Parts: sequence; structure tokens; C-alpha cells
Amino acid sequence: MELNEAIEIVKGQLGKSRFDHTLRVLETARELARRFHAPLEKVELAAVFHDYAKQRPTEDLRREIISSDLPKDLLDYHSELWHGPVGAILAERQYGITDKEILGAIYCHTTGKPHMNKIEMIVYLADYIEPGRDFPGLEEVREAAEGDLLYACWIVSRNTINHLLNKEATIYPDSIHAYNDFTRKMKMEGKFNG
Amino acid sequence: MELNEAIEIVKGQLGKSRFDHTLRVLETARELARRFHAPLEKVELAAVFHDYAKQRPTEDLRREIISSDLPKDLLDYHSELWHGPVGAILAERQYGITDKEILGAIYCHTTGKPHMNKIEMIVYLADYIEPGRDFPGLEEVREAAEGDLLYACWIVSRNTINHLLNKEATIYPDSIHAYNDFTRKMKMEGKFNG
Repeated sequence: MELNEAIEIVKGQLGKSRFDHTLRVLETARELARRFHAPLEKVELAAVFHDYAKQRPTEDLRREIISSDLPKDLLDYHSELWHGPVGAILAERQYGITDKEILGAIYCHTTGKPHMNKIEMIVYLADYIEPGRDFPGLEEVREAAEGDLLYACWIVSRNTINHLLNKEATIYPDSIHAYNDFTRKMKMEGKFNG
Repeated sequence: MELNEAIEIVKGQLGKSRFDHTLRVLETARELARRFHAPLEKVELAAVFHDYAKQRPTEDLRREIISSDLPKDLLDYHSELWHGPVGAILAERQYGITDKEILGAIYCHTTGKPHMNKIEMIVYLADYIEPGRDFPGLEEVREAAEGDLLYACWIVSRNTINHLLNKEATIYPDSIHAYNDFTRKMKMEGKFNG
């Protein structure tokens, strides 16, 4: 699919503010792809589609989880987590996107998952640091993203868990698997002790 | 098994400082059992045995995990987590303790697990707040433990995850399941929003 076509499709699905966020994620993901030598076209398509299902009614998302192969335990967690997995399903079914890396990046951009590849990490990170975002701890991530994709993603996964603990909210297990996986890789690369 | 017999058995397995900790956990667990109406004898036996395997050589613990039915993913996490599950296995095999609640409390006293029962919660909490412990955040838990077993355990599970995040350490999934489970129960009981 051409990038412009993808942008038009997604534009039709999102309100202005959410679409503007998508364009900023696209721009940020592009920069990260260049910086960390990831395949640009895949990153662009994944970034454009990451919030494709974000503004669907919760009941539509729920139905899609129930009727598809998506893991049913998603339903036990906040509906905020549903649009990534459902977006990946819909991008494949409605637009014939079959690339596993693109679909994976759409799928896990909110929660993370274990063994994320570079494209998944870039979209996950771009969604967190795009210039419209503003919350505590962001500067540390943006700084790390200048030179270390793994460490930047590690901070995102840690901050996400921390944020949920502070909100007294449940934590989707994939978020822990992502954090554990990033932590092990940081240790293996000698960037953390132990 | 008589309590005095259990104490003598465990005394033979632990150095003085660890045995003294065990006696403080026993005393704290007793108080909690009275306060929250849990079966005293089960709580006592679980408290006495909770660190039974704590001072075994790491290689013995590893061998026991490999050769038993214990989940093998324990081996991917810090060896500090192994003595609970192995202790439960040994208490059953060596001393014929078959009560599932006692074994469960020994098993999960470090990590927690989903759907903990009252005996498991009491040993988990007593191990954290016994009077010899001294670290930041403890007063909040001790205060909660005066009147609300669930909330006290929720704080323990949150603090444990927080502590691991701050140490850049991996988190055993059962610790998240415990936290999620406590969080859901707090919401169901109307003690948290959402």
C-alpha cells in the first residue's frame, strides 16, 4: 500500500486531534527509522495505522476480540488496550496488509510484548515521545531515544508499569513480558548490572 | 505436625539471623490470623516453614526445580525466588505436609500469585512487615495491616514491583498476577475507583 493511500484511509477513521497525533508519530517514527537503520516503508505504514481502530466504539472492539483469534484475556483489562490488537486484525482483513512486522507493531504499540523487533520498538517509542506528548519523565526517554533504542524502550516499559501502579490500575501481562525482555537484553549488552 | 516439632526442624536448616526472622514472622502471622480470623494452626505451620529452603545452595534449588513439577520459567528469574516453591515441595516430601493452603503459603510468600487465600496472604504480609524489617514504605503497610488485609497485601504487591523496577530487575509474572488480582478485588469492594 502507498503511504498516501494509508494516510487517507486512517484520516477517515480518526478525529482531527487523533489524526494529528498520528502524523506526529509518523514523523517521529521516520526519524527513529533513519537513526536506527530500520526499513523505512514498513515503519511508516505501521506508524500510520497504529491508531486505526482507536476511535471505534468499545463494543465494536469487544465484539472483534470475541469473534477473532485475539487472546480473550484482553477483555479482563482496560478497553484502552484493545485498539492495537483489533487495529492489526482490521488492517489485515480490510486492507490486505500481511507483513507480520507491520501488524505486530500495530498490535503491541500500547502494551508492548516480549521479543519486540526493531519496527515494533520504533512505533512503541514514537507513540510515547512524539512532540505533542507532555508528561513527567518524557525528557529522559527523548534523550535516550537520541542514541539507544533499547534503553529508550526499556524506560517506556518501566514508566508504563509505574504509571499503572500509581493509578491503582491493572497491568496487562504483555507489558511485564516486554519490560522483562528489555531488561534481560540491557543486562546482556552490559548496560545494566547483574 | 506439632508446632514445636516444626520449629525444631526449621531451626536445623537456618542460620541464627534467618531463624530469628522466622520466629518474628511466626509471631506476626499469629497476630494477623487472630485479627483476620484465619485458622491459627495452619498459619503457624506455614509461617514456620516459609523459609525452610532459604539457605540451601542455589544449585540444589535449581536441581529441585528441574527434577520436580515446578514451573521451569522460575529458572529464568532471580534465584531469590526459588526457595518458596522448593520449600513447599520439600515440606510435602520430607515431612508429609499435604495441606494445600499451607503449601501454597510457603510456595508464594516471595512472589505472590493470583487468587491468594487468607493463609497465603497472611504469610506474604507477615514476611514483609515483621518487626525486624526496616525499609521505606513499610509504615504504610503496617498501618494498613491493622485493619485491612487485602489493602495491606495490595501495597506489598505494588511495592514489590516498584522495588524491582527501581533495581532494573526482572519481575516474575506471578507478582503481576497477584497485584492485578488484589487490584480487581479492591475495585470490587469499592476501595478503589474504576
